[in-house]
Amino acid sequence: MTTSRLFSADVQQTLDLIGIFVFALSGGLLAVRKNLDIFGIAVLAEATALGGGLLRDLIIGAVPPAAFENRGYFFTPLVAALVVFFLHPEVARINNAVQTLDALGLGLFCVTGTAKAHDYGLGSVAAVVLGMVTAAGGGVIRDLLVGELPPSLLRWDRALYAVPALVGGTITALLIAAHSLGAVTGTAAALVAFAVRMLALRYEWRAPRAWHRGSASSGPEDA
Amino acid sequence: MTTSRLFSADVQQTLDLIGIFVFALSGGLLAVRKNLDIFGIAVLAEATALGGGLLRDLIIGAVPPAAFENRGYFFTPLVAALVVFFLHPEVARINNAVQTLDALGLGLFCVTGTAKAHDYGLGSVAAVVLGMVTAAGGGVIRDLLVGELPPSLLRWDRALYAVPALVGGTITALLIAAHSLGAVTGTAAALVAFAVRMLALRYEWRAPRAWHRGSASSGPEDA
Amino acid sequence: MTTSRLFSADVQQTLDLIGIFVFALSGGLLAVRKNLDIFGIAVLAEATALGGGLLRDLIIGAVPPAAFENRGYFFTPLVAALVVFFLHPEVARINNAVQTLDALGLGLFCVTGTAKAHDYGLGSVAAVVLGMVTAAGGGVIRDLLVGELPPSLLRWDRALYAVPALVGGTITALLIAAHSLGAVTGTAAALVAFAVRMLALRYEWRAPRAWHRGSASSGPEDA
Repeated sequence: MTTSRLFSADVQQTLDLIGIFVFALSGGLLAVRKNLDIFGIAVLAEATALGGGLLRDLIIGAVPPAAFENRGYFFTPLVAALVVFFLHPEVARINNAVQTLDALGLGLFCVTGTAKAHDYGLGSVAAVVLGMVTAAGGGVIRDLLVGELPPSLLRWDRALYAVPALVGGTITALLIAAHSLGAVTGTAAALVAFAVRMLALRYEWRAPRAWHRGSASSGPEDA
Repeated sequence: MTTSRLFSADVQQTLDLIGIFVFALSGGLLAVRKNLDIFGIAVLAEATALGGGLLRDLIIGAVPPAAFENRGYFFTPLVAALVVFFLHPEVARINNAVQTLDALGLGLFCVTGTAKAHDYGLGSVAAVVLGMVTAAGGGVIRDLLVGELPPSLLRWDRALYAVPALVGGTITALLIAAHSLGAVTGTAAALVAFAVRMLALRYEWRAPRAWHRGSASSGPEDA
Repeated sequence: MTTSRLFSADVQQTLDLIGIFVFALSGGLLAVRKNLDIFGIAVLAEATALGGGLLRDLIIGAVPPAAFENRGYFFTPLVAALVVFFLHPEVARINNAVQTLDALGLGLFCVTGTAKAHDYGLGSVAAVVLGMVTAAGGGVIRDLLVGELPPSLLRWDRALYAVPALVGGTITALLIAAHSLGAVTGTAAALVAFAVRMLALRYEWRAPRAWHRGSASSGPEDA
């Protein structure tokens, strides 16, 4: 269980809490838009911030999950929920900053999620997938709970979200295979994922859809 | 594993089955309103009655979950589904009685859920949260399955549901900390949760929503 | 862990991959209809093909789940996603063939799911339920993710889907109880489930709904 602790305990905890806080803000803001009450804001903040790691921990068999073992993980989303409750217009106004921090959380969680899955003995492909689940799963649960379906993650008209997580997770898996994952290289992997996400937002990168051919039966057979 | 057995095995089993039966009725009635067939009624009855405990057991690592280990737990919702299938107008007509029994189930499950989570080594905050998950999780799964989103639990226009569960779970955690959880005190905790829920229904207690300030930028900064 | 290996490892793996591939096609086709991008197609293909087995494995405590341990299980849905991406009009046109293969997957998965649950120590009723979860759970997750609610499984206007799975699982459980589950009898159980599903499709078998009595209070008390 050493590689999952990329950084000193203090640094790791601080980075985790930043990611959790920002993910919780996005959940809380959606709850306000959906007209939920303070309890609904808190639930959506918790589910968005901790849902991805919870899914990962259930799948790798790390029970009780970290979300239920670490009080800081639990209380941080409640603080975010209070911030949203009292200051949601201000938080919404700094949406660009929230998106930037969300991209940081994405970068961090895909790296730590991949590393933790590897620590529990999963293969590299499975670990990368679980890194993506860690980073993006909370947002899917958030969207499910308020009926925003298909969830933002799967909508073609949103900028790439999973791909940056897969990039960060793949780099992490390669670093693990090369016995080179550490604080510096792990941070670099997270920053690459962060950068890809920011570029996707800036340039509205989207994944291709299956084309719908015209009624003529002579459409191209392949692209 | 002693505290989770608050009562004699017979009493505990009877109380559990009553709670399961009533939760199953609420699931079955929603299935009828949604025009589902007898199979859908059975699935919704099972999911509503057992879903909360199933989530709790997956999270604390109690596998296979009680829902799959105890045949009485499995067959009771099927009986409720048959009752709803043949007598749904009558069951709907005694909705007040169903709501009262549902409140009893809520009170019972938040106490036993908190106690079981504690037995599996979770901290007091996590145990209270899992008590709420036990009591309210089945209803969320029920609403997800029929597309009633956001689920009833999160809607501001419904009377408080989670708060009574949190009250009952908190009392239970305090009793555990004081080494005082037993049949009498556990029943008292369940009855307090029941009473809070009934008062919330009677007086339409609701949680506050984040206020939406007018267009004037000079709205109050805090409340 | 012997009974779950009904067939030689090669045969079992081949049958599993066929079932996974066909379930993935159905997920991918729905993703195209919902206008999702290539990533959404891949996610829906994976979730539909592996979701049922994943739920089963979490419930019986088989972690990490087979979906994350077997690379063939993971890559097969990606191949199906590519097929759908490039050839979706052709795949949609052979929908009858897809439905037939889907019925084969249903038959196979309810048998292997029941056998695996039994291997992990669950009772016969629970094992049959988990066989159905294995066969039908992926489709429910697929429908949840795109907001097709209630899911196809629960809609009265769709031909029976769970009942064939329950039939196949029950035969499997009886074979296990008689110490007679093997390659031949297991295949027979899968074929019975397959046949029931095909008949349900052909003759549009549906489960009954609770009748809604007229306004007259003298409606029939039972049917």
